[in-house]
Amino acid sequence: MTRQRLRFGLVGTGRIGQVHAAGIAAEPDAELVWVADPNLSGAQGVAARYGGKPTDSTEELLDARDIDAVLVASPTPTHLALIEACIDAGLPVLCEKPIDLDIARVDNLRTKVAGSAVPVAIGFNQRFDPSFAEARARVTAGEIGRLEQLSIISRDPGPPPAEYIAVSGGIFHDMTIHDFDMARHFLGDIVEVSATGAQLFDDGARAHGDYDTVAVILRAASGGIATVSNSRHTVIGYDQRIEAHGARGMIQVANAPSSLVSASNSLAVEAKPPYVDFFLERYAAAYAGELREFIKLVRGEVSASPTFDDGRAALLLANAARRSAEKGAIVRIDAE
Amino acid sequence: MTRQRLRFGLVGTGRIGQVHAAGIAAEPDAELVWVADPNLSGAQGVAARYGGKPTDSTEELLDARDIDAVLVASPTPTHLALIEACIDAGLPVLCEKPIDLDIARVDNLRTKVAGSAVPVAIGFNQRFDPSFAEARARVTAGEIGRLEQLSIISRDPGPPPAEYIAVSGGIFHDMTIHDFDMARHFLGDIVEVSATGAQLFDDGARAHGDYDTVAVILRAASGGIATVSNSRHTVIGYDQRIEAHGARGMIQVANAPSSLVSASNSLAVEAKPPYVDFFLERYAAAYAGELREFIKLVRGEVSASPTFDDGRAALLLANAARRSAEKGAIVRIDAE
Amino acid sequence: MTRQRLRFGLVGTGRIGQVHAAGIAAEPDAELVWVADPNLSGAQGVAARYGGKPTDSTEELLDARDIDAVLVASPTPTHLALIEACIDAGLPVLCEKPIDLDIARVDNLRTKVAGSAVPVAIGFNQRFDPSFAEARARVTAGEIGRLEQLSIISRDPGPPPAEYIAVSGGIFHDMTIHDFDMARHFLGDIVEVSATGAQLFDDGARAHGDYDTVAVILRAASGGIATVSNSRHTVIGYDQRIEAHGARGMIQVANAPSSLVSASNSLAVEAKPPYVDFFLERYAAAYAGELREFIKLVRGEVSASPTFDDGRAALLLANAARRSAEKGAIVRIDAE
Amino acid sequence: MTRQRLRFGLVGTGRIGQVHAAGIAAEPDAELVWVADPNLSGAQGVAARYGGKPTDSTEELLDARDIDAVLVASPTPTHLALIEACIDAGLPVLCEKPIDLDIARVDNLRTKVAGSAVPVAIGFNQRFDPSFAEARARVTAGEIGRLEQLSIISRDPGPPPAEYIAVSGGIFHDMTIHDFDMARHFLGDIVEVSATGAQLFDDGARAHGDYDTVAVILRAASGGIATVSNSRHTVIGYDQRIEAHGARGMIQVANAPSSLVSASNSLAVEAKPPYVDFFLERYAAAYAGELREFIKLVRGEVSASPTFDDGRAALLLANAARRSAEKGAIVRIDAE
Repeated sequence: MTRQRLRFGLVGTGRIGQVHAAGIAAEPDAELVWVADPNLSGAQGVAARYGGKPTDSTEELLDARDIDAVLVASPTPTHLALIEACIDAGLPVLCEKPIDLDIARVDNLRTKVAGSAVPVAIGFNQRFDPSFAEARARVTAGEIGRLEQLSIISRDPGPPPAEYIAVSGGIFHDMTIHDFDMARHFLGDIVEVSATGAQLFDDGARAHGDYDTVAVILRAASGGIATVSNSRHTVIGYDQRIEAHGARGMIQVANAPSSLVSASNSLAVEAKPPYVDFFLERYAAAYAGELREFIKLVRGEVSASPTFDDGRAALLLANAARRSAEKGAIVRIDAE
Repeated sequence: MTRQRLRFGLVGTGRIGQVHAAGIAAEPDAELVWVADPNLSGAQGVAARYGGKPTDSTEELLDARDIDAVLVASPTPTHLALIEACIDAGLPVLCEKPIDLDIARVDNLRTKVAGSAVPVAIGFNQRFDPSFAEARARVTAGEIGRLEQLSIISRDPGPPPAEYIAVSGGIFHDMTIHDFDMARHFLGDIVEVSATGAQLFDDGARAHGDYDTVAVILRAASGGIATVSNSRHTVIGYDQRIEAHGARGMIQVANAPSSLVSASNSLAVEAKPPYVDFFLERYAAAYAGELREFIKLVRGEVSASPTFDDGRAALLLANAARRSAEKGAIVRIDAE
Repeated sequence: MTRQRLRFGLVGTGRIGQVHAAGIAAEPDAELVWVADPNLSGAQGVAARYGGKPTDSTEELLDARDIDAVLVASPTPTHLALIEACIDAGLPVLCEKPIDLDIARVDNLRTKVAGSAVPVAIGFNQRFDPSFAEARARVTAGEIGRLEQLSIISRDPGPPPAEYIAVSGGIFHDMTIHDFDMARHFLGDIVEVSATGAQLFDDGARAHGDYDTVAVILRAASGGIATVSNSRHTVIGYDQRIEAHGARGMIQVANAPSSLVSASNSLAVEAKPPYVDFFLERYAAAYAGELREFIKLVRGEVSASPTFDDGRAALLLANAARRSAEKGAIVRIDAE
Repeated sequence: MTRQRLRFGLVGTGRIGQVHAAGIAAEPDAELVWVADPNLSGAQGVAARYGGKPTDSTEELLDARDIDAVLVASPTPTHLALIEACIDAGLPVLCEKPIDLDIARVDNLRTKVAGSAVPVAIGFNQRFDPSFAEARARVTAGEIGRLEQLSIISRDPGPPPAEYIAVSGGIFHDMTIHDFDMARHFLGDIVEVSATGAQLFDDGARAHGDYDTVAVILRAASGGIATVSNSRHTVIGYDQRIEAHGARGMIQVANAPSSLVSASNSLAVEAKPPYVDFFLERYAAAYAGELREFIKLVRGEVSASPTFDDGRAALLLANAARRSAEKGAIVRIDAE
């Protein structure tokens, strides 16, 4: 009656690839069997630590007979081709976000994904954070009545390297994209985007014409409205909050404390240590949950979530937000 | 060495007029001497309770020799004429917000106000809320470094009567206008407004083409960005929060608890009673502080704040927000 | 249909006398008519500020035809004689705690009080604190099931003058006595007391053989157990907390915040300003509520609470605690 | 340069033995090599899951050449003999609390332990809880000045089986003993104990003459005073709080939240889900830290903590508390 472990091939061994390698190694129902990276030493390092055979050839990994699924954690421009190759190979694939930066390229693959029985999931890990998931489940269950307003605040401890910004597509595509997905996860389809950006402190962002500080308003087809505030820096720890207001109440998700200690003195009371400030610490349970959900998907126990189309929808919103911020216009999202 | 009490004439005895009458009566440095309302019985009721001579003639009040200052709490359309009459009479005036709904009419009086030595102050009471004032003072003192993002959430316990909406100018002019003033108070001049509104629950709002739920993004000349979320209803009490994020930290103002009690059981822990839900309870100290500040202004100890121009600026923002929401466009605020 | 104001004679114009004078002046249903203090200038000062005729003769006050009730705020040794005189004069009396320091003297008056129809109430103001009262009402209503454990923490901002300690009877009689009353208010009769005291910082306490830091365990006839922790100093503001644990949950009363502001930076998050640190600020509503309750008592609308016997019971507990701490023994409280 | 894993023999495979087996398996610097339990199937089950060779003979485990240290998680009456056998075998030992229930038996072994170079540590895991450890480190560093009062509240979700109470020595020896150790950890040597117990709800406790609800006052040689409140039940989750009050401030350790979600509605605001309610969830990091500290001890990097004498001191306090509660007397702890 024991289940077989799902045998994973991992493509990409950068920071997020290592996160997934560790996650697969820690998951009783999964094992790491192949690790591919054009940089062979990266693949070797990950394989030595978390198991699997290293290779510098993605083709070798996809051709291997001993894998059941693929986890794509390579650079964004490779995502679509890898998803397609997985479909062709009949291998279920969990692909990191964003799906791509070019909606036309995404649309080219869309029909194929829709027409295939091979499971494809996109890595919006925040959906699997236990607290966000609890909040969403309670909202969906009607605890606060109709969801009218959603407030998302997301601030990173510090800006990424300028080189990263150069290829990431910018703050809306690499950072706000999580919030676009969460807004859709809570509110459903978004029909209108208004975004404002500022260059306040990060020279890297300025150098690449990107913003370090943004605010976005999203209007949902349901009538609900979401606001998103992002910053590339904060000193208080990783600032990741969601608040849902409805006709019958409010549900809030607070930041993650780094300890249970608080201190009071003549200057301040109930002061706590700064929040956990590393995304891995904050979202460790989310990555583990994402992996477990994908395993269930491969086993046919659940349907895909987030889907390829969820990845596409988030990209559409990121594109719309950038256009809104650049043109100073409120942007409608076309139906379909 | 004892100071003389400032003798007030009050114009208007509706809900907010009664608030001010009570405030004047409770303030040791003030006394209520005249009360005017076209509805004489209203004036008589207030005078009986808080002191002063009732009249149905504003002219009689303005002509009285025994008042030192005027508090205008009459309907919005009368504000500008009363301010002008006070200037002509040499009587310092504290006028409730909004200053008017028509910017052209406001501009007509602007030069006269600027050229007069008679103190004119506008009643944005929230500036005088002790917690908001503490937060603003700490931000201004540099505690969180440069102010980069301001988040304002303001939700009323329930929608006003439809008849009020009909004359109030709508949600941006009667409700968000407080937040526009606070955003300016924290961030300085606003140069860009983006607003989104929805009709989700209030038939009165729908009947008058108004929104019951709005979100606004404001960009300041300083580069800082504010978001405002408003709703005409909430069941949790009066929801009035401000959060300022800067390079060196964050300052938050929480809702006002109605008691110090919390309860824990098998379903929930640390549950508190709903917040105070009446604006008078929430802002009692703010109204008192506003009055004391005005008394200092009349005595020449401080300069006016908020000024006539602050009132005008908030109106400009409300106009811009309405236009933004109606046209689906981001609106620039003209210089001057 | 308007009610007549209750006309008060106030005896004693020290700090607590001034508190009550201000309270009477602020209460619409009360007025201050006579003020007595052997130190005539004290009486004159209070009368000038809050109304009433000053006198240095308590007899004159008690003989006055124009008072309806007496508020006793004079030194403890005078309390019993004044209560007796009020009974003889047929004047309802609200007497500050403690009732006396000598249980034999208290018992001498006990029968007379019990046999008289003249209302006598003792000033344990904390019973009227809105948050403590809410907590007690919810416990009494059964919200947490049977009350099993009560934890009281009470710490003053700083020690009183050594001269005060000399006559106050010591920490159990002037400070813990409030907690003894609250423990009885929540748990009912106490049958056993165990107390431990330490001299850690206050030279005044040490000079008079008193403690500055104590802990007490109280066992109730109901089976419930209370712990009390007291300190004569704390830097965090006035520390006044109660926590009730029962079979079905827990109810806590937190300290009173001095504002709604919290701050977060790289060292600490959610730090609030110190709690209100003056007993008047913390217990302003309690004193007002105590006065209103007494007015109802005089009008026959409620029965006395706390009663003369409540004052006696608290004294018994303070005596027992001192004996326990001094002898190192757990002390039984005799029935009756 | 890689270190060798410490090879563990585990004695005892009940609930706490399984906790330690899992901890050893999860610790990179440790491995489970032998598992002994008179109930062989228990040993086999643990070995199958976490590694190691199962045996029903503790002697076989102690004679094995391939272990570096022993973890004793067998019933309390076996602890002393196993510690002695480990010393004789030259095997460092980490022994669960309590060390024994009979102080005379403990004293018989004391000289041998003191005279041996074999490391012996006692399993008071709470010392290694990250939040308690942070609180204690900050207190020790002087952040709140002299530590004057310590308040410990510890309540279990539900009472243990009656059979457990029969052999555990009672609430002071199996539950409060953790708090005695924490009080000593924060305040140093305790010189006086006063305890009160009640039988309020647990028939198992009543049947064995034990209490289900207790309160204890501890006086330290330093002058500081601790209060401890224990209950065998609570519905709010596992209630484990410590609060340290000193001349310059207060440090508090709160309960562990089970999520970051809070909810507000018309009845209550900021309500959170109940706290984590399983000791393993609450103290998972503590058990891991305890194991790492013991590994360091074996490697000679730190000295033992808590020591055999710490275990003895906690037993002395438990004995004293039981005597205090039974006799109704405050009990002095003899020097030495």
